[in-house]
Parts: sequence; C-alpha cells; structure tokens
Amino acid sequence: MSKTEVVLGIDIGGTNTKLGFVDREGNCLVAATMPTEALTEVGPSKEVELFLQRLYSTADGMFAKISDTCVMKGIGMGVPNGNYYKGTVEMPPNLNWNEIVPLASILEKHYGVPAALTNDANAAALGEMKFGVAKGMRNFLVVTLGTGLGSGFVVNGDIMYGADGFAGELGHVTVNPEGRMCGCGKVGCLETYVSATGIRRTVYKLLADHTEDSEMRRISFDDLTGEMITEAALRGDKIAIEAFDYTSKLLGLKLADTVAITSPEAIILFGGLTRAGAHLLKPTHKYMEQYMMPIFKDKVKLLVSGLTGANTAVLGASALIWNELDKRPQL
Amino acid sequence: MSKTEVVLGIDIGGTNTKLGFVDREGNCLVAATMPTEALTEVGPSKEVELFLQRLYSTADGMFAKISDTCVMKGIGMGVPNGNYYKGTVEMPPNLNWNEIVPLASILEKHYGVPAALTNDANAAALGEMKFGVAKGMRNFLVVTLGTGLGSGFVVNGDIMYGADGFAGELGHVTVNPEGRMCGCGKVGCLETYVSATGIRRTVYKLLADHTEDSEMRRISFDDLTGEMITEAALRGDKIAIEAFDYTSKLLGLKLADTVAITSPEAIILFGGLTRAGAHLLKPTHKYMEQYMMPIFKDKVKLLVSGLTGANTAVLGASALIWNELDKRPQL
Repeated sequence: MSKTEVVLGIDIGGTNTKLGFVDREGNCLVAATMPTEALTEVGPSKEVELFLQRLYSTADGMFAKISDTCVMKGIGMGVPNGNYYKGTVEMPPNLNWNEIVPLASILEKHYGVPAALTNDANAAALGEMKFGVAKGMRNFLVVTLGTGLGSGFVVNGDIMYGADGFAGELGHVTVNPEGRMCGCGKVGCLETYVSATGIRRTVYKLLADHTEDSEMRRISFDDLTGEMITEAALRGDKIAIEAFDYTSKLLGLKLADTVAITSPEAIILFGGLTRAGAHLLKPTHKYMEQYMMPIFKDKVKLLVSGLTGANTAVLGASALIWNELDKRPQL
Repeated sequence: MSKTEVVLGIDIGGTNTKLGFVDREGNCLVAATMPTEALTEVGPSKEVELFLQRLYSTADGMFAKISDTCVMKGIGMGVPNGNYYKGTVEMPPNLNWNEIVPLASILEKHYGVPAALTNDANAAALGEMKFGVAKGMRNFLVVTLGTGLGSGFVVNGDIMYGADGFAGELGHVTVNPEGRMCGCGKVGCLETYVSATGIRRTVYKLLADHTEDSEMRRISFDDLTGEMITEAALRGDKIAIEAFDYTSKLLGLKLADTVAITSPEAIILFGGLTRAGAHLLKPTHKYMEQYMMPIFKDKVKLLVSGLTGANTAVLGASALIWNELDKRPQL
C-alpha cells in the first residue's frame, strides 16, 4: 500500500510555535505546540539554535506516530517578517532573533525536502484558497485582525508578494497623518485603529470623551484585551459597541479603497476580533458599501474565515508548501 | 523573404481614436487618427456601426501601405471601461455608446486574427513593460494623470485585472469622505484632487483663499486647463506652484499607501501633468517618502513614462496583444 503524502506545517508566533502534519485534503493528522523562545535569556544566535533543536525534536516525535503510513513531502511555514523569495525570517520585531535567518534552506537541508515560508497573513490566504471559504477564487484578500492588522492578497490565483516579498501591509496605510503613533515608526496607520491594540486605544479615547459608565472603566490600559472588549460588546456595553462601530468605519473605508485598487471577489476577515460577530461585520459591511466606488457596489463578499479550530495557522502554512509542490511537480 | 509580423494597436479616446501597425520591437510602421464619434447625432447603436465603418476603412487604408512586407497577427485596444475578461466596452461615460459592445469579438470576426482589449491605464502599463522604462520589471504600476486619474498594476508579471476585470481604480480611493464631489458618484476621490480637472479645482480653491495675484485670475473655470496650470507653474506663478505642491502631497500619500499594499519596484507617472517636471515630481517623491512605511523607504523608484511621442497609447494597445500572442503561441 502506498503511503499517504503529508507536509509539515509550522506557524511561528511570538509566544508559541504550532506544528502539524497535514495531508492533501487538509486533515491535520498529528499536531503539537512548543514555546517559540527559550525559557531563559540566551542571546540571538543561541536563541535560533535552541529553537531549531526544539523544532526538530518536536517534529521528529510527531512524525514517529505516523511514519508507518505517511511520507513527508515538504515543509511550509508562516512566520513573522517572512520573505518568501529568499526563504528568510528578517529581524522579526516580536522575536529575539536579531538577524536574518535562512530558515527555509536550514530545514530543507535538515529534512531533505522542499521548504517554503511566508508571513502569517499570506499563509492564511493560501489556507483559505486550498481548504477554506476561498476555494476556487483567484482574486481575494484575507485581513487578519490580531495584535496588529495583517493582510494577504491573492491576485490571478497567486499570492501578491511584490517586488521585495513584503507586499500586503494593509495595516500600514494611513488613516490620519496626524493620528496615532504606530510601532512601525509612522503615524496614523490603519492598525493603530483596527486591531486588538487599536480598538483598545479607541476604548480609552471613548472613556475619556464620554461620561457613560462601562465595565471597562475598572480595567487598566495594560490589562485591557481585545477579548475583553469583544465580551463587553456582546454583553451590550455601549462604549464597547461604539468602539467596534468606529473600528468598523475605518476598516470599511480602507476596504473600499482596497477594492478600488484590487477588485477582489471576496474579503475574508480572520482573527480574534471577528468573534464580536455582528458588532464588527454589520458596520464594516455598511461602511464599506457606503465608501465603495459605484461600479463595485454589492459585488464584493465580506466573509469570516472558514478555517476554525486550533490548527488554522498550521493549515495555512501547509497550504503554502502544497501549493509549491503542485507548481513544481519535479521537486 | 518572410513577412514582418505586425499588430494593429488602437487607442479609443473620448475625442479621437488613434491607430497604428506596430512590430515586435515597438516600431510603429504606419499610424493614423480618426474621430471617435460621428459628426452628427445618430444614437447609440448607429454610433457603434458608424465607428466600425470608419475604423475598418482607416485600418484597411493603413495596412495597404505595408501589406507587401507585413502580415497582421492580432489587434490590441486601449478603451474606456474596457473589460479584458469579456472583451467588451461597457457603457463608457465619455462615449455615446449606451450599451455593452463586444468589440474584441467583432474585430476578431472581421479580421480573422486574435483581438484583446483593456482600459488605457492597463495598456500603458503593458507598453512600459514591453517597450518602455519597466522592461524586465514584474511588479510595478503606471499612474495616468489625464482628465482623470487611471492606474494599471502589474503583479507577478501580469496585469492585475481583479475578479471583474476592473481592478486599478486608484483614482477612486478616498482622500476625504467629506471632500469634493466625483463624477463616479462618490465624494472625495483621489482624482478629484490629482488629475487635470483636480488641479483646476485646487487652483480655484487657492484663488479663493489667497489674495496673491496670479495669471490664472484672468481665466474662467471652464477655460482653465491642466496645460495652462503647468505653463503657469513653469513660469513661476506661485498659485500654480502651490497647487502642484498640494496635488503632489495627496498623490504622495496615496502612493505610499499603494506601496504598502502592493510593494512595487517602481511607480511610473504618465500624462500631461508630468510636463510640469520638478514641480510635480520633487514634491510627490518627498511626500511619498514622508508617508512611507519604513520597510519600503528609499526602495521604490518614481519614474516618468519612457513612452513619448504621438503613438504612446497605440504602443500600449499593441503591447497588450503581443503579450497575448506570446502567452498563447498556438493562436
């Protein structure tokens, strides 16, 4: 009996790294999670070395469970500041890897199979196209609403990487050149308004401007999370609901601009803030249509990710390498 | 001796339609111009019929001059509201063709060669890639600054047509939701500020706000043209120079946003306003870099079109069909 072909999908996050062996149909046969950083401070290059040791031992232990029936064909990764063209992780701001790490070639050499990497939003877009709500679509985008705002664009059936591999920074288009300071060094970027940290800033602005009571008045800025604001909105807290409306207005405006430029079939929202459901989706759709160029009105679907559960990011990473293997069958 | 392969490039403008037979190297062997609309009011479908009669007789007359040495391989067109996917011209606002005209298939049937069409900005982008300053580039955009603002994006080496064939409407991203009324039905679109008509509106705003004298105070709104404002700026008129600075600021801001989304190697400006030279280019570059996300700073070239002369638009249209013929050599 021929063995089942699987790939290793890896999602490297600021805190945890998730791994899974995934078949062509998107079934995650075995999964695991490991800490991304060493428990004690070790310095950048030692940090990468220890990361690789943990990665190898975790992946090897996982593969031992399925090696009788499966063969590993490749490795796909979703990583912060991932450069698809070079296969490198470049100075990720949230990791203590202060260098450019050629992670794809390191893993290719170690395992003897093709490896590819990209950022997490591009991986999410590929995951939606292969296994999620974007099956069959050739032009769409995924917007990830997490700590920041990421985006991955599919154009003519392929990820838009741009000239340098870093296209898709929708989180850093300007809402207001005299607005909020952004971690990227600019002022007024979309993600300073539309993200878990952005909506937290909006809540604090609203608490300052209004006199209305809110459960969030008892929480410090540092303690307040996107989940808390989502829960407050779902419980009917007016400040939280107004914060979602303001967030949605700016998101809707910039999505309408993005439609004018790229004419997608659908926009897929992904990430924690989508748990607010109608508090986010209804106003975002309303404002997007309000600011939409007439020729695009009522044409673009606004969807929530079809990938759910713990292995979502791993599925995206695995979709990247399945895609590469399909493009280059000789590998 | 084998005959030289040529294509017919056609650029349909609101007033004139330009035609040229172009070889693979971008040499325009014979060119002509004819009026786009009938001289007397005839109604939409008759209008299209008469347009086709003029087109056939003009093209046939041109081809007669080169038919001894050339063979016609295809037809490419740059047209208003052109849908590349369907080969149709769809209700162009500036033409009296009140219908959806399947122009590509009409010409394919008449001449027995492949025909393709797209809008003029996409044709310009293909022209730059094949014959102009974008040779060898796989990710760039062309911004056409004419009566309106058009744009054509090349992503991964192909035009980004989007889901419906109408991607690239950079002229209709929102600068200010409470700003100027736009012909598209929206408010505050970029082209209401950045285009020949946009800068005219800015001049009138500045003439209202300031007391400074200007040669443009002697010209009515209806008589003022982009060329006059360009000439005034080149002569040192302060209102004209300030109007170019304001235009450049908004263009630079939106170009920086566009870079964040698409990460192009270059942005190529095209059209009448570029004749203002440094009055447009220097401030546009300055503001673009000012609003640029740091990872893209000093990476993106801002260029002026390398296609000059009367046959520019025809070269773009011919590039479209050369591109199609190269993609589908069996045709």
